[in-house]
Amino acid sequence: MMIIMKVGATKDQINAVMSSVENLGLKAHPILGDEHTVIGVVGEVQSLPPDQFVRMPGVERSLPISKPYKLASLELHPKSTTVTAGPMQVGGEGIAVIAGPCSVESRDQLLETAQAVHAAGAHALRGGAFKPRTSPYTFQGMGEEGLEILAEAREITGLPIVTEVMEPDLVELVASYADVLQLGTRNMQNYALLRAAGESGKPVLLKRGMSASLKEFLLAAEYVLSTGNQNVILCERGIRTFETATRNTTDINAVPVLKAQTHLPVIVDPSHSTGDWNYVAAVSRAAIAAGADGLILEVHPNPLEAMSDGGQSLKPKRFVELMRQLDAIAKAVDRSMAPAPERVAVPAV
Amino acid sequence: MMIIMKVGATKDQINAVMSSVENLGLKAHPILGDEHTVIGVVGEVQSLPPDQFVRMPGVERSLPISKPYKLASLELHPKSTTVTAGPMQVGGEGIAVIAGPCSVESRDQLLETAQAVHAAGAHALRGGAFKPRTSPYTFQGMGEEGLEILAEAREITGLPIVTEVMEPDLVELVASYADVLQLGTRNMQNYALLRAAGESGKPVLLKRGMSASLKEFLLAAEYVLSTGNQNVILCERGIRTFETATRNTTDINAVPVLKAQTHLPVIVDPSHSTGDWNYVAAVSRAAIAAGADGLILEVHPNPLEAMSDGGQSLKPKRFVELMRQLDAIAKAVDRSMAPAPERVAVPAV
Amino acid sequence: MMIIMKVGATKDQINAVMSSVENLGLKAHPILGDEHTVIGVVGEVQSLPPDQFVRMPGVERSLPISKPYKLASLELHPKSTTVTAGPMQVGGEGIAVIAGPCSVESRDQLLETAQAVHAAGAHALRGGAFKPRTSPYTFQGMGEEGLEILAEAREITGLPIVTEVMEPDLVELVASYADVLQLGTRNMQNYALLRAAGESGKPVLLKRGMSASLKEFLLAAEYVLSTGNQNVILCERGIRTFETATRNTTDINAVPVLKAQTHLPVIVDPSHSTGDWNYVAAVSRAAIAAGADGLILEVHPNPLEAMSDGGQSLKPKRFVELMRQLDAIAKAVDRSMAPAPERVAVPAV
Amino acid sequence: MMIIMKVGATKDQINAVMSSVENLGLKAHPILGDEHTVIGVVGEVQSLPPDQFVRMPGVERSLPISKPYKLASLELHPKSTTVTAGPMQVGGEGIAVIAGPCSVESRDQLLETAQAVHAAGAHALRGGAFKPRTSPYTFQGMGEEGLEILAEAREITGLPIVTEVMEPDLVELVASYADVLQLGTRNMQNYALLRAAGESGKPVLLKRGMSASLKEFLLAAEYVLSTGNQNVILCERGIRTFETATRNTTDINAVPVLKAQTHLPVIVDPSHSTGDWNYVAAVSRAAIAAGADGLILEVHPNPLEAMSDGGQSLKPKRFVELMRQLDAIAKAVDRSMAPAPERVAVPAV
Repeated sequence: MMIIMKVGATKDQINAVMSSVENLGLKAHPILGDEHTVIGVVGEVQSLPPDQFVRMPGVERSLPISKPYKLASLELHPKSTTVTAGPMQVGGEGIAVIAGPCSVESRDQLLETAQAVHAAGAHALRGGAFKPRTSPYTFQGMGEEGLEILAEAREITGLPIVTEVMEPDLVELVASYADVLQLGTRNMQNYALLRAAGESGKPVLLKRGMSASLKEFLLAAEYVLSTGNQNVILCERGIRTFETATRNTTDINAVPVLKAQTHLPVIVDPSHSTGDWNYVAAVSRAAIAAGADGLILEVHPNPLEAMSDGGQSLKPKRFVELMRQLDAIAKAVDRSMAPAPERVAVPAV
Repeated sequence: MMIIMKVGATKDQINAVMSSVENLGLKAHPILGDEHTVIGVVGEVQSLPPDQFVRMPGVERSLPISKPYKLASLELHPKSTTVTAGPMQVGGEGIAVIAGPCSVESRDQLLETAQAVHAAGAHALRGGAFKPRTSPYTFQGMGEEGLEILAEAREITGLPIVTEVMEPDLVELVASYADVLQLGTRNMQNYALLRAAGESGKPVLLKRGMSASLKEFLLAAEYVLSTGNQNVILCERGIRTFETATRNTTDINAVPVLKAQTHLPVIVDPSHSTGDWNYVAAVSRAAIAAGADGLILEVHPNPLEAMSDGGQSLKPKRFVELMRQLDAIAKAVDRSMAPAPERVAVPAV
Repeated sequence: MMIIMKVGATKDQINAVMSSVENLGLKAHPILGDEHTVIGVVGEVQSLPPDQFVRMPGVERSLPISKPYKLASLELHPKSTTVTAGPMQVGGEGIAVIAGPCSVESRDQLLETAQAVHAAGAHALRGGAFKPRTSPYTFQGMGEEGLEILAEAREITGLPIVTEVMEPDLVELVASYADVLQLGTRNMQNYALLRAAGESGKPVLLKRGMSASLKEFLLAAEYVLSTGNQNVILCERGIRTFETATRNTTDINAVPVLKAQTHLPVIVDPSHSTGDWNYVAAVSRAAIAAGADGLILEVHPNPLEAMSDGGQSLKPKRFVELMRQLDAIAKAVDRSMAPAPERVAVPAV
Repeated sequence: MMIIMKVGATKDQINAVMSSVENLGLKAHPILGDEHTVIGVVGEVQSLPPDQFVRMPGVERSLPISKPYKLASLELHPKSTTVTAGPMQVGGEGIAVIAGPCSVESRDQLLETAQAVHAAGAHALRGGAFKPRTSPYTFQGMGEEGLEILAEAREITGLPIVTEVMEPDLVELVASYADVLQLGTRNMQNYALLRAAGESGKPVLLKRGMSASLKEFLLAAEYVLSTGNQNVILCERGIRTFETATRNTTDINAVPVLKAQTHLPVIVDPSHSTGDWNYVAAVSRAAIAAGADGLILEVHPNPLEAMSDGGQSLKPKRFVELMRQLDAIAKAVDRSMAPAPERVAVPAV
């Protein structure tokens, strides 16, 4: 931590700050600049309030130097983490694609989608059974019945299941069906949920809060990691900016920045980060070109009749075409699509 | 809802959209513009997905017309709501001020603060027993012991208690001590929590999400209102923008906009919306001048030693001075400070 | 400047950075932290590129310590500046109000408005003759004819004239009519214009860029000040955020922050910062309550027929009412409305 | 345009709005909804103020339907534009790369860079002779001497020159040296400059304002196009958001959105959109994968000693490696790198 004294801070003020630092068992190193004196604080500052010292007379502000996350840090854990969920691996050499509808709407809809994305080479099936909705008046999901349908789809296709859990009390139930627990953008700082999901032992797909800085995102991951669960997949899903031409702004910079700061795998969700199926293929390609380890995509057999997010869902036919494009991009960055999960015999639905 | 057709949409495409509208039991009113045809949709569209119709051939986009919240709407409920919590009223003619430390840190700290803010004319006591912290490594609050201390402070001062609840499972516990349940900025879209807090029957102080639009804020309130609990206080606490000179940007526009759109009382939290005690008095005055019904403020007897948010807490002496300023501003806008809760005999601590 | 070395930077890397600092005639003060070594740089760093040193091996990042603006700084110039333009003073004890239409549309419209705002106690007349418009297809202003009408209004009312100049080549012309040169939000970093306006010697009303940080705003003022022209009025006019309920977000925090950082007067433009006349009075009151030295407001005798910004203009009758409210707020913050310019005999128009 | 009446607007209010519409020679089509009446306005509304009608009693708000730009619109001009500048084509099948230093600092520095980027296959040389700098105290460019050096580099390498012009009065001078006039992010709404650059007849590389919406960006292009100059290249260079891990946020969504809305070529500037050379390659690949027509990149032979933007400049060796990667990405999206300009004999410098 660096403490910046005001221009004109007195010797007594500087000494008082230094004493206060040393009384906490830390060391104070003053630097006398032409305008400002700066006091470097050395020692274990991580559990101090970030604004410790700023109220002392003569102090202008203080600056943290160390990164506040430790378990998520690439500096301290330089080996990449690969998260395994059933036959899917995220974070290794292969690119993983998680696909499926926004919501589980019916058995027919889900099984049709599951088989289509399976046939196209997807590595996991997504689908929401419990849905966070901005308005209390819109469809809130099928609940446990949706989870049962997802499990059936897994049996048929072999695809592991990624589905959202919205409250700590439902973690046990959702974890009993799902292969990966998805934590949504609105819950990135729902600490009880982060802990409960971590403690379930299941891999966690953590979506970035729509206005969370990357530092806050890594601190949210730190909550999960601090439960001893190392299987966290980070997902950039677009941030909120002034631009309204798209639902969110895909922060493509986040991909190389996260890869430089953390050992955790990083995927992108172009369906939500654009909010418009017309732009999903372009941004999916961009994500892989930028170094993402995978994608999570909304696919719906009949977007016209989707109960949520129809506007941003790909039809299966376009998804097949996108998978072909992604294969070419993966090769261009010296990677490849992960091998598809072993195809099980698919009985007629 | 208005459906905007693309320039050059064909007659068949327009007819198909109109049929689709009418098949849902709604009425379609086409307007042929020079460039675009627009189809007005009349009927109950509230439970339709917002992107219904946008996938149909020839459709460019659709626009909602009706406001998505109903119970929170001033248009539909033109009488102002006054929320009562013990001796405090928020939303009436009087201005209410909720004050106290960010966190309950000890019995001494809290009782000293409680008596100081009581003496200065505050209307309720705030203090966090369960704290949402960005980092898992910083102080997380005293838990139930903190609630007990808050209850003791209420007994001594008569001030009702405002304290945060962070997870649905703790609503019952927190509600058994608190007069008002505070829902924090990170939980504005924690729907399980919104419902549980609503169902407790206690007044709810709902903070705006740091990147929530006012429409989303009112929809979050709608979740609480839809449980039958009408006692919701809206709190503007600053939004996240590009400006880093302050911790957040106080959206002062939000005050008159909310007052024009909802019957619920609106207060402001200048401690968080600025993040710096130096600016708290100025923004507190601005809030009341703009028409807010009250404030929630951080006050700490010794900010230098606060375990959280010391940098933005007022000392009691400055709080006394601010209350004097607020009284003048309240009169300038033809209001007044609410009468202080009846002072009970205050035993020595 | 502080240079933060990476975790694990080698002794050689640290020494190389220190040598590089010293080769520039600066002093290097290393602090060995538990994770990072930090090198304090003392000396004249202001003309170095901000990213000097960051490319050296082992360097993580660097942080500026001194403020980059000097002439605008309150620290270095602790006496408040009062800007005088004809009979108007901005930045003294009195609150100044500049009012008038967005655009000069006709002689009748302007003279009617001028007399109305004069009668209501305004201190200067605003009106655009050259208009910056987002679209090339909308009204671009009356040009020099508009300036002549403004000058006529000054003759009649005694009000000094505030009007925008958009390009360096027009500074001489506009300065020959205007008492204050307004530089608009889109031109806050138009450096040629900043310099030309500064060199005119006229007072400059500088609007904050809609996405400019306060630091950038003060650096833009520094361009004007560095021409030797000390008469700069800073104007907060709303910033661009994700919120769309209002045209911009009034950054009310900017008022006390600027007053703490600069000696220049600070005013607010609630017409643009809200974009809706319904909210102008509330935000005007808030600005004065927060410590602003004045306001600039759009007033139009017939907003229904305004050629620009009709939606955010006050009618004269509401402006009269607002001036009464502002008087009360000014007193509540121990200030007062500046005395109105001496009323000249007003001939019938 | 659609006019949304308030809930409860009276028949008289609706009729008055309809009369007002028709008095302007437009047609009014009312739709009676359950809550709101909506009045569709058909006819030439483009030159009306956007807030026309909103002040009439009973009106809640109005919504534009037609896009405000015409010449830039893909809908109205469905054929892609290819901009030609010397041997470089932007917007055709080939990908074009413009590379060079942020600033021209010396003859040696520029010629060395020019030959390096030429050898690596770049299609044009960038370099600033006039520099827009946030602070008046930092290096402001070499001026005309810089332009002469750029021209010399063109003679040696055959690369066309892209350089910024900052004020209308310098357009003639800069155009006498440059092949493409660059308009910077701070000048995107400098209308005098947009017009002057357009009138020069030279191709214009227009950078998006750092907080400009895509609609405003296209309207700025419209200013240039409306001078009769069709050679506009749009450049996404990052937008300002709350995220501070990178200098700006690359709006990768902007690439497919712009390609869907305009016929003009679209390029990306990853040096500025990230502000850190570490992330430039990843974002460059992403841009081409998303469908961009080219890139503009900062390359410096010795970034450690750059007078500006050293932190975001690539060394020539890394630029060579990036060009190889881009070639692979271009093929993966069924395009290719544009052929390099014919190599002229390169004399020793």
